[in-house]
Amino acid sequence: MKKPDAWHLARRAEDIAPFHVMELLAKAKQLEAMGETIIHMEVGEPDFPTASPIIRAGQEALAQGYTGYSPALGLPALREAIAGHYRRRYEVDVDPSRIIVTCGASGALQLVLGVLVDIGDEVLMTDPGYPCNRHFVRLFEGHGRNVAVHRDTRYQLTAEILRAHWTRSTVAALVASPANPTGTIIDEEELEAMIEYARRQKGFLIVDEIYHGLVYGKQARTALAFSDEVFVINSFSKYFGMTGWRLGWIVAPPAYVRMLEKLQQNIFICAPTPAQHAALAAFTPEAEAIFEKRRETFGQRKDFLLPALRELGFDIPVTPEGAFYLYANCERLGIDSMELSRRLLKEAGVAITPGIDFGSFGASQHVRFAYTTSLEQLHEGVERIARFLGQD
Amino acid sequence: MKKPDAWHLARRAEDIAPFHVMELLAKAKQLEAMGETIIHMEVGEPDFPTASPIIRAGQEALAQGYTGYSPALGLPALREAIAGHYRRRYEVDVDPSRIIVTCGASGALQLVLGVLVDIGDEVLMTDPGYPCNRHFVRLFEGHGRNVAVHRDTRYQLTAEILRAHWTRSTVAALVASPANPTGTIIDEEELEAMIEYARRQKGFLIVDEIYHGLVYGKQARTALAFSDEVFVINSFSKYFGMTGWRLGWIVAPPAYVRMLEKLQQNIFICAPTPAQHAALAAFTPEAEAIFEKRRETFGQRKDFLLPALRELGFDIPVTPEGAFYLYANCERLGIDSMELSRRLLKEAGVAITPGIDFGSFGASQHVRFAYTTSLEQLHEGVERIARFLGQD
Repeated sequence: MKKPDAWHLARRAEDIAPFHVMELLAKAKQLEAMGETIIHMEVGEPDFPTASPIIRAGQEALAQGYTGYSPALGLPALREAIAGHYRRRYEVDVDPSRIIVTCGASGALQLVLGVLVDIGDEVLMTDPGYPCNRHFVRLFEGHGRNVAVHRDTRYQLTAEILRAHWTRSTVAALVASPANPTGTIIDEEELEAMIEYARRQKGFLIVDEIYHGLVYGKQARTALAFSDEVFVINSFSKYFGMTGWRLGWIVAPPAYVRMLEKLQQNIFICAPTPAQHAALAAFTPEAEAIFEKRRETFGQRKDFLLPALRELGFDIPVTPEGAFYLYANCERLGIDSMELSRRLLKEAGVAITPGIDFGSFGASQHVRFAYTTSLEQLHEGVERIARFLGQD
Repeated sequence: MKKPDAWHLARRAEDIAPFHVMELLAKAKQLEAMGETIIHMEVGEPDFPTASPIIRAGQEALAQGYTGYSPALGLPALREAIAGHYRRRYEVDVDPSRIIVTCGASGALQLVLGVLVDIGDEVLMTDPGYPCNRHFVRLFEGHGRNVAVHRDTRYQLTAEILRAHWTRSTVAALVASPANPTGTIIDEEELEAMIEYARRQKGFLIVDEIYHGLVYGKQARTALAFSDEVFVINSFSKYFGMTGWRLGWIVAPPAYVRMLEKLQQNIFICAPTPAQHAALAAFTPEAEAIFEKRRETFGQRKDFLLPALRELGFDIPVTPEGAFYLYANCERLGIDSMELSRRLLKEAGVAITPGIDFGSFGASQHVRFAYTTSLEQLHEGVERIARFLGQD
């Protein structure tokens, strides 16, 4: 089905939106090149380098020459270590045979949606939500069906919402807990009810748990505590601080492992091998102590930034429990969120992410603040915003 | 469009064939566990560890904390270094802005086919050929159209073949030079003619150059020498010996770079960052000296194995010029290729790949030998095959 234009371009490529924050970032770089200092509150990446035990393990793996392909499902030792993590942290038994090591959570989403989504199939997801989710579904000629979520459900889907939106074309619902951009966690009862509901529809709940571990004041339970018939996606990027290594994993229902393995063989071969060896050190007590300290640091930042933004007039009706984001309504400030993001950058030197990057529902009334920078920088950022708003 | 079975499974997942060699490998492992020694001539991976300058650069990158996300298009310094490689080795000017660093050639194929293939679109490819190619097209709901290629065109597509098979649904032809499993190189005139032909059809030639550099007795020219309107895919895996690092690249027509960037942002974020830093060392004189020495070693193995197999009765009518494979017709031995592969493993302890892993045309008459093991092992393998054939 060729298109009439001079050069061929797949329709999916046209449907993929850029991240608007990238424009802002390019602008921020220009400003920085001109000598201005920018406070970065837009970055979805921990500001800590990978923890030293992992660095050392990575260096040692290279010294040992562990640079060849790994099995498609991942290094057996790493799959065992991940299973051990579920046992120790969640008291949940996960058979290592159900764990597939992937090229980041991105690779995990590709594999899971690749084995679930046929042409025209729908996957329910939250609006606001992680912007790439709908593009993964689009990649496979399915439809990411955005469902507007409100403060009353803590910006999360619920079993009731699934019931209201699930159609004959729906094959899965994709949720994240803690979520990006809102930082909220799904209630345990709702998580279990959603898994059950999707199963009864012969579909699946896919649970993105990449911000697990980065939870403040409570302990989140994994969806795997409730059922084996759920796809859980996780990553070494956020809590484990290994963004650039591109390493994540899937825990799949047993019947799907072989399909995921074949797809991985064909479209990825395997996840990066040196990274897999390095990640073995992520489950040592030494590394876990570092992660916990960093988690505390993130918690302290949240404890400063959340009340400070509220005081400035941002409405944050749902107190987030995890991740490193605050999703703030800027309506009371009388300025559209895109305009606010642009002007805060230009006039105050503060970079934040406009709501439009996370969907369309309430997008022009919301912005996302990331606390992936030091308390000092956050203080400076808040002061700058206060000045911009004439509140200094 | 839900299917009637109890659990949902996308049709594409059912369409993806496993590699038959994997079964053989599992069997080989069993035999090895029982104390038998197996000669491995099935492995599509260099038997050398990553070269020491790259290892050191990788260790240094980790020490420096280069563990965060890179720009979606790749590290600017690496894109410059790749452009320099084209200048030095091929005397071809490639603007670094056209180079996209990817998660292996696998990631490159996903991106390129993702921006070219709509539902029902066709991509022409050789049979025999790299088995994953048609699955990449299937991933995006297109059809990989296998075209049987014979010894008379050195198992390659030609402009004449393109003309005979190109339809209104064809958007691209995917060729490899040197090719897997045949090791042959596309004639320069044909390469240029195919690029031209595809352009006149408003489609593209996609040229897989991942075995470039591993060429014996002649120097292959890159498709980029002939046109900017071609997609070239390359990899750090084979010549550069970095399989497990998962790093490759695309050189794209200028108009497609932005689309590829958006797709990469969304479905991969970026290629592994430590690997990108390490790969900078692949273009140093020290590393290049190591690669050239290894290339000579591969050449010596080919010079032994090719006549030895011919002497055993395998028909290898086209002398391969590159990669590390020999594609051999076993018809004269009076045994089907799948059967031969199974029996050679079981009765002689030699692992090879049956033709069926590369397509269906002549599959039961062909096997692939990889010379990714030492001359000593190859000698032993040949002796074992001779004994198996009663020729000792």
